[in-house]
Amino acid sequence: MKAFRGQMLAALILLFLPLSPVLAQRKKIIVDQDARGPASTDMQSILMFAQSPDVEVLGITLVSGDQWVKEEAAHTLRALEIAGRSDIPVLLGAEYPLVNSKEESEAWERQYGELAFKGAWTPRLYHPPDVVPELPEGNPKTKPRDEHAVDFIIRMVRTYPNEVILWAGGPLTNIALAIRKDPQVVSLARELVLMGSGFNVDKGGIHRINGRREFNWWFDPEAVRIVMSAPWKKITITPVDISVKTFLSDEIKAAIAKSDTPLARYHTQFAHGSYMWDEIAAAAVLDPSIITRQQELYVNIDIDHGAGYGQTIFVEKQVKVPSWWKLATVQFDLDTRKFYDLYIRLMSQPAPRPVEARGRN
Amino acid sequence: MKAFRGQMLAALILLFLPLSPVLAQRKKIIVDQDARGPASTDMQSILMFAQSPDVEVLGITLVSGDQWVKEEAAHTLRALEIAGRSDIPVLLGAEYPLVNSKEESEAWERQYGELAFKGAWTPRLYHPPDVVPELPEGNPKTKPRDEHAVDFIIRMVRTYPNEVILWAGGPLTNIALAIRKDPQVVSLARELVLMGSGFNVDKGGIHRINGRREFNWWFDPEAVRIVMSAPWKKITITPVDISVKTFLSDEIKAAIAKSDTPLARYHTQFAHGSYMWDEIAAAAVLDPSIITRQQELYVNIDIDHGAGYGQTIFVEKQVKVPSWWKLATVQFDLDTRKFYDLYIRLMSQPAPRPVEARGRN
Amino acid sequence: MKAFRGQMLAALILLFLPLSPVLAQRKKIIVDQDARGPASTDMQSILMFAQSPDVEVLGITLVSGDQWVKEEAAHTLRALEIAGRSDIPVLLGAEYPLVNSKEESEAWERQYGELAFKGAWTPRLYHPPDVVPELPEGNPKTKPRDEHAVDFIIRMVRTYPNEVILWAGGPLTNIALAIRKDPQVVSLARELVLMGSGFNVDKGGIHRINGRREFNWWFDPEAVRIVMSAPWKKITITPVDISVKTFLSDEIKAAIAKSDTPLARYHTQFAHGSYMWDEIAAAAVLDPSIITRQQELYVNIDIDHGAGYGQTIFVEKQVKVPSWWKLATVQFDLDTRKFYDLYIRLMSQPAPRPVEARGRN
Amino acid sequence: MKAFRGQMLAALILLFLPLSPVLAQRKKIIVDQDARGPASTDMQSILMFAQSPDVEVLGITLVSGDQWVKEEAAHTLRALEIAGRSDIPVLLGAEYPLVNSKEESEAWERQYGELAFKGAWTPRLYHPPDVVPELPEGNPKTKPRDEHAVDFIIRMVRTYPNEVILWAGGPLTNIALAIRKDPQVVSLARELVLMGSGFNVDKGGIHRINGRREFNWWFDPEAVRIVMSAPWKKITITPVDISVKTFLSDEIKAAIAKSDTPLARYHTQFAHGSYMWDEIAAAAVLDPSIITRQQELYVNIDIDHGAGYGQTIFVEKQVKVPSWWKLATVQFDLDTRKFYDLYIRLMSQPAPRPVEARGRN
Repeated sequence: MKAFRGQMLAALILLFLPLSPVLAQRKKIIVDQDARGPASTDMQSILMFAQSPDVEVLGITLVSGDQWVKEEAAHTLRALEIAGRSDIPVLLGAEYPLVNSKEESEAWERQYGELAFKGAWTPRLYHPPDVVPELPEGNPKTKPRDEHAVDFIIRMVRTYPNEVILWAGGPLTNIALAIRKDPQVVSLARELVLMGSGFNVDKGGIHRINGRREFNWWFDPEAVRIVMSAPWKKITITPVDISVKTFLSDEIKAAIAKSDTPLARYHTQFAHGSYMWDEIAAAAVLDPSIITRQQELYVNIDIDHGAGYGQTIFVEKQVKVPSWWKLATVQFDLDTRKFYDLYIRLMSQPAPRPVEARGRN
Repeated sequence: MKAFRGQMLAALILLFLPLSPVLAQRKKIIVDQDARGPASTDMQSILMFAQSPDVEVLGITLVSGDQWVKEEAAHTLRALEIAGRSDIPVLLGAEYPLVNSKEESEAWERQYGELAFKGAWTPRLYHPPDVVPELPEGNPKTKPRDEHAVDFIIRMVRTYPNEVILWAGGPLTNIALAIRKDPQVVSLARELVLMGSGFNVDKGGIHRINGRREFNWWFDPEAVRIVMSAPWKKITITPVDISVKTFLSDEIKAAIAKSDTPLARYHTQFAHGSYMWDEIAAAAVLDPSIITRQQELYVNIDIDHGAGYGQTIFVEKQVKVPSWWKLATVQFDLDTRKFYDLYIRLMSQPAPRPVEARGRN
Repeated sequence: MKAFRGQMLAALILLFLPLSPVLAQRKKIIVDQDARGPASTDMQSILMFAQSPDVEVLGITLVSGDQWVKEEAAHTLRALEIAGRSDIPVLLGAEYPLVNSKEESEAWERQYGELAFKGAWTPRLYHPPDVVPELPEGNPKTKPRDEHAVDFIIRMVRTYPNEVILWAGGPLTNIALAIRKDPQVVSLARELVLMGSGFNVDKGGIHRINGRREFNWWFDPEAVRIVMSAPWKKITITPVDISVKTFLSDEIKAAIAKSDTPLARYHTQFAHGSYMWDEIAAAAVLDPSIITRQQELYVNIDIDHGAGYGQTIFVEKQVKVPSWWKLATVQFDLDTRKFYDLYIRLMSQPAPRPVEARGRN
Repeated sequence: MKAFRGQMLAALILLFLPLSPVLAQRKKIIVDQDARGPASTDMQSILMFAQSPDVEVLGITLVSGDQWVKEEAAHTLRALEIAGRSDIPVLLGAEYPLVNSKEESEAWERQYGELAFKGAWTPRLYHPPDVVPELPEGNPKTKPRDEHAVDFIIRMVRTYPNEVILWAGGPLTNIALAIRKDPQVVSLARELVLMGSGFNVDKGGIHRINGRREFNWWFDPEAVRIVMSAPWKKITITPVDISVKTFLSDEIKAAIAKSDTPLARYHTQFAHGSYMWDEIAAAAVLDPSIITRQQELYVNIDIDHGAGYGQTIFVEKQVKVPSWWKLATVQFDLDTRKFYDLYIRLMSQPAPRPVEARGRN
C-alpha cells in the first residue's frame, strides 16, 4: 500500500511537473528561421535554443531566405537529429516572399549595383525551390510536421496567450502571413524578437558598405512593413550594427571542439568564420545581460521599389511620427566575452532532456 | 410493364443525374467577395451565382473591402437565408489588406486629394472592424464556417484540381494570402476571374474622373501585385471601363419586383441605382456571350506609395515586358440587353435546389 | 508751319503706332517648341502663329524633345525663311531635360514595356545632339540669335510685364529653367498655354493605349512638376484627349495645296497625316471659340521614378488639395470644322507683314 | 649700393610676383555657397578662401539653403568688407531648389518625422525670401554684381577652360542650372569639389541619427542627381562622416582671438561651436594632405519622393553600375591638428593683397 502510494505520488509529480513553477517559467519560443545548413548562423541560433534548458522551443517555423524552405527543412531536421532534439516540431512556411522576387531583384541590381548575397537567389548557389540537394551532414530521417508554419504560429499564440516569444532569424514572411490571417497574433504574442535591419554600419549588409540593406529585411520588405507596423507588446531588434562586433573565430571553434558530443563534432566540421548575426539575437533572449547598449527607436523599412527598396528607415524616439511607426529596442553593443562563453557552453554541453521526456510522460 | 420501365428509367435518370455529363459540367466556383449588404453590387453577384443552375458555388470567401469582413458575413448569411441557399458555405477571410491602411490612405489623401469612397474606411460610414450593426434586412440565424477563407481556397483547389474558378469581386487579399501560403493554388486553379482595375474611363473609380484608381485594387495594391504576377492558366478582368456602361435602373428593379419570391422582395426593398460592377463579372461566367469586346493586355498595379499607389498599369500584348507581367483578358463592352435579361431572370426565379438535395443524398 | 505740324503729327503717329489700340491688342507670344522638321505638328503650330496677324511672335525658343535642339533650330529657321518670317527671333534652349535621360528611359522600358516614340531618343532615329543632318527642305541661311532661350524668356516677360503669353508645344525644360533662374517670370507672364498631358484616352500617348504618358510631359517630368506647381495667372492645357479628335487629312492637305505660296508648297511636300496636337493649342489662342468643352482641373505629373514616372495626375476642382496643385483649364472638345478652316486659311494665305515693317520703322 | 640693388631686386620680385610661374599656378575657384551669416561654417569657408594666397576666388555664387539667397548676399558682402576682400565678386543665384519645397518637406515630415534643421525653411527662423533682416555684424555697403550666378559660372568656365574648380558648400541648384543651361560646363570645369552627402554616421545630418540625410543634398535632391550624374573630370566630396570628426572649439576661437584683425574680431564675436563641415572642404583644396583617408565610390541621391527622398545612395567602385553613377573621391578621415592649424592661421593673418592690387595693375 505504501509502495502504491509512493508510486501514485511519483506519478502525480510527473503528471503535474509541467505546471511546476520552475518549468512554467521557461520561456516559450517559436523560432522562425531561414535555416541555411549545415552550421550557419541560422542553424547555430536554432541549436542554441535547442541546447538551452531555459527555453521551451514550441517549434521551428521555416521560411525561404538564405535557402529555399524545403532545403532548410532538411538541414534543420538533420541538425536536430544530431543534437538529439527531434522532439522539437519543424514546420514548413512560406516558399516565396510577399512581393519581392528574384526577377525584380535582378532588375534592381542593374540599376543600383549587384548585391553581394541574395540567399536562395544568389546566382552561384541557385537551384529551383523544390530541389533539395544531398546534405553533406547526412540526410535526415525525421520529417517536418504536416501543419503549415503560419497555422502553427497562430495556434501556439492562441494556446499560450501572452506567453509566446516570436523569435525571427529570417525574413518576416511567415509572421506577416500569420498577422494577416489572424490579426490577434499580435496582441496574443508576448514579444517579437528579431535579427534584421541595419543603421549606420559599413559592413554586414548585402550591399557591401551600405549596412542598411540587410538580407533578412531586404528579402521581404513588405513583410517587414506589415510586421513592424503592428502593435506588439515589445519589439527587440538585433541589427547588423551589433552583428559585426562579433566573429565565430577559430578559438571559439577550438573551445567547442574539446567537447565530444555529436553536436560539437557537427560544429567543428561545418561551422566557419562569420559574423554571429542570429546567435546574438538568440543569446540576448537566453541572457539579456549580454547586451550592454540598446536604444529605443522607431524602426521600419522603405517599400518603394526604387533606390531605397528594402533599406531600414528609423527615427529617434522623441520625434513625432504617425502611428504606423512602432518603437523597437535596438541592440547596439554587447559583452562579447560573456556572449562567446554562453555560445561555447551551449554548443559543448549535452542536449537537455526534451520537455516531453521530463514532464509530459 | 412499359409504365414500370418508364418509371424505372426516370428513377435511374434521377439517380445518376449528378453524374450525368450535364451536371458534371457545372462550373465549380469560389466566390471571393467584400460583400457589402444589403443588396449591393457585391451581394447581387453572389445571389446571381446562388440562383444559377449552371454553377456550383463551393463557398463564399469574404474579405474586408466595401465593409469589414464580419459585417459582410452577417449580410451574406442573411441574403443566402432569404434566397434559400444556406447550404452554401460562408467563410471569413482577411480583416485587413496586406500593407495599405486607413491611416496611410489619409496621409495620401492630404497630398493627392480626398477619395470619394474608401469602403470600410469611408469616414461617414466608419465603425471598428469587430462591430456588426443591426441589419436592416434582419440578422442572420446561420453562421459562417469555422475554416478560414484562405484555407478553404487552398483545400478546394486541391480537392478539385483544374476545376475551380476563383472569382473575385473584392480586394485580392484572400487570394494573395492563399498563393503565398500554398504556391500551388495558382497551377491548381482553373481560372481567375475578377472585377477590378480601370483603364481609360472618367467615372466609376474612387478618385472620381480618374478611373484607374478602382476601389478593389486600390484597397490592397500589394495583393493585386502578388495575384496578377502569378502564372494563372487564365485571367479574366471586368474593369470599371465596362461597369459604367451598365446601370441598375428602376425598370430593371420593376421587372424583378413582378416576382414574389423572398429574394425578389429583398431586391425590391434594398437594391438601388448603381453601376453593375460585379454583376457583369458574374454574368460573364454564366454566359460569356454577354461580353462583346475584350482585349488581351498585360495588366498589373502601381505599388510605389506615391501619386500612383493603387493605380492600374497596363501594356499592350505585343510589347516586350518582363515575366512578372501577365496577360489578362480585359472586358471592354457588353450586350446590355442580354445582360439585363439574365440578371432579371436570375433574380426573379425560385432558388435552384441545392446540389446536396439533388445529387448528393 | 502747318505742313511741319502735319509732318510732325505723321511722325508722332508713326512713332506711337506700336502703342495704338489695334496693335496693342495683338497678343504677344513666346512660342516654346521642340520643333521637329520639316512640317510636323510642332512646325505647323509655329507657322500658324507666324502666319497670323493676331499675334506678335516675340520669339521661338527651342528645346530638345521631338528632336535635338540644334536640329530643330535648322528646321525652324528654314521654315521661317520659306514663310518669309525670318524677322522672328529663333533661340536655342535646353539640350537635355532636367533629370530624365535616354539611359534611364531604357532601364524603365525594360521594366514597363517599350515606348512607341521617344523623340530625339527614338532608337531608329537616333543621332548625337550635336549632329544636324542635311535638311530635306533645304538648309537655312539664317542663324539663331546668340541669346539663350531661357534668358530671352526672362527678358521678354520683364520687358512686357503681364503681356506675354508663354506658349509651350514641347517639353517644359526652358520654362522650368527660366522660373528657377528668375522666379518672377511666373507673376510677370500673362498666361501659360501648353500642349501636353493626357487623361482618359487610349491613343495619342507614347505608351500606346495609355494616353496619360504623353510625350512632352514624359520627356521632362521634373520640369512639368516645377512649371505646373507655379502660381501662374492662368494655365491652359491642350491634352492628348482632344488631339486625337483631329487629323491632318488628305482633304486638308489638298485644300492648302490650292494655294501657291512657298509655305503651302512646303506643307504639300512635307506634311503628313497626324493628330494635330500642337495646332489645336495654337488655334485655341488665335480663336478660343474653337474649343467647345473645357474643364478646370488640378493637373500635375508623377515624378517618382517607377511605373508612373511621367504620367499625368489630376484631381477635380472641388477636391481639397495642397497648394502645390494648381488649377488648369483643360480642353476636351472642339469644333473641328472651325479648327480645320482656320488651319487651312492660315497655311494658305500670304505671310503677314512683319511687325517691324508695319509699325516700328 | 649693393644693398640698394638687393632691395630693388626684392621689390621687383615682389612687383612681378603675380605674373611669376608660382602665382600662375594659383587655383582658380568659384565658391558656390548657401552663405549663412554671420560666421557660420558657410562663411568661414568663404573667408578661408578669401584669406588664402593659394587660390584666386573668381567669385562667390550664392544659393538659397541655410538661408535665403538675398540674406546670404548681405552677410557675405559684409564679411568680405570686414576681411578687406570686397574685390571678390558676389553673385546671386537660385532662390528656390528645383523641385523640393517647404510645403513638400512639411508633408514629408508628417510621415517620416520632423527634421532637426531645414535651413531657410526652419520654422523658428522662417521669414519670406525677400526679407533681409538687419545684420548683427552691420549691414554691407557693397552690392552683389548684376550678373546671375548661373551665368557667371558658365562665363568663367568658358573664360578659363579646364582651370576652374567649382567648389560647392551648399545645395547644388546653381550648378545644376548651369549644366542644363550650358552642358559644356561639365567638360570645361577642372574639378567639382563639394560638401554634402552622408554615408554611415549617426550625427551631422538633419534627420538626427540618420546621417544620410545631409542638409545640402536634401535641400535640392534633383539638383544633386543632375550634378552627380554628369561626367566631371573629377568629383571630390566632403561628407558628414568626416565633418563630425571636427569641432570649432573654444580653444580654436581663443587662438584666433589673439589676432587683432577685423576678421579675427568678427570670428571671435560671431563664430560658435560647430562641426566644421565646409571648412574641411575648403582646407582640402588648400592643403590636400590634410585628408588622411578617402575612398572612390559611386555616389548619388535618392530622388523618389518617399521615405528615402534626399538620402545619399552609394556603391563600391568594383560594382557594375549604369553609366549615370559617377565615381567620386569621398573623404573619410583627416589630420585634425594640421586642419585646425591651417584654419587658425588663415583666420588670424592679414588679408592677402587682392589679385588686382598685386598683379593686374
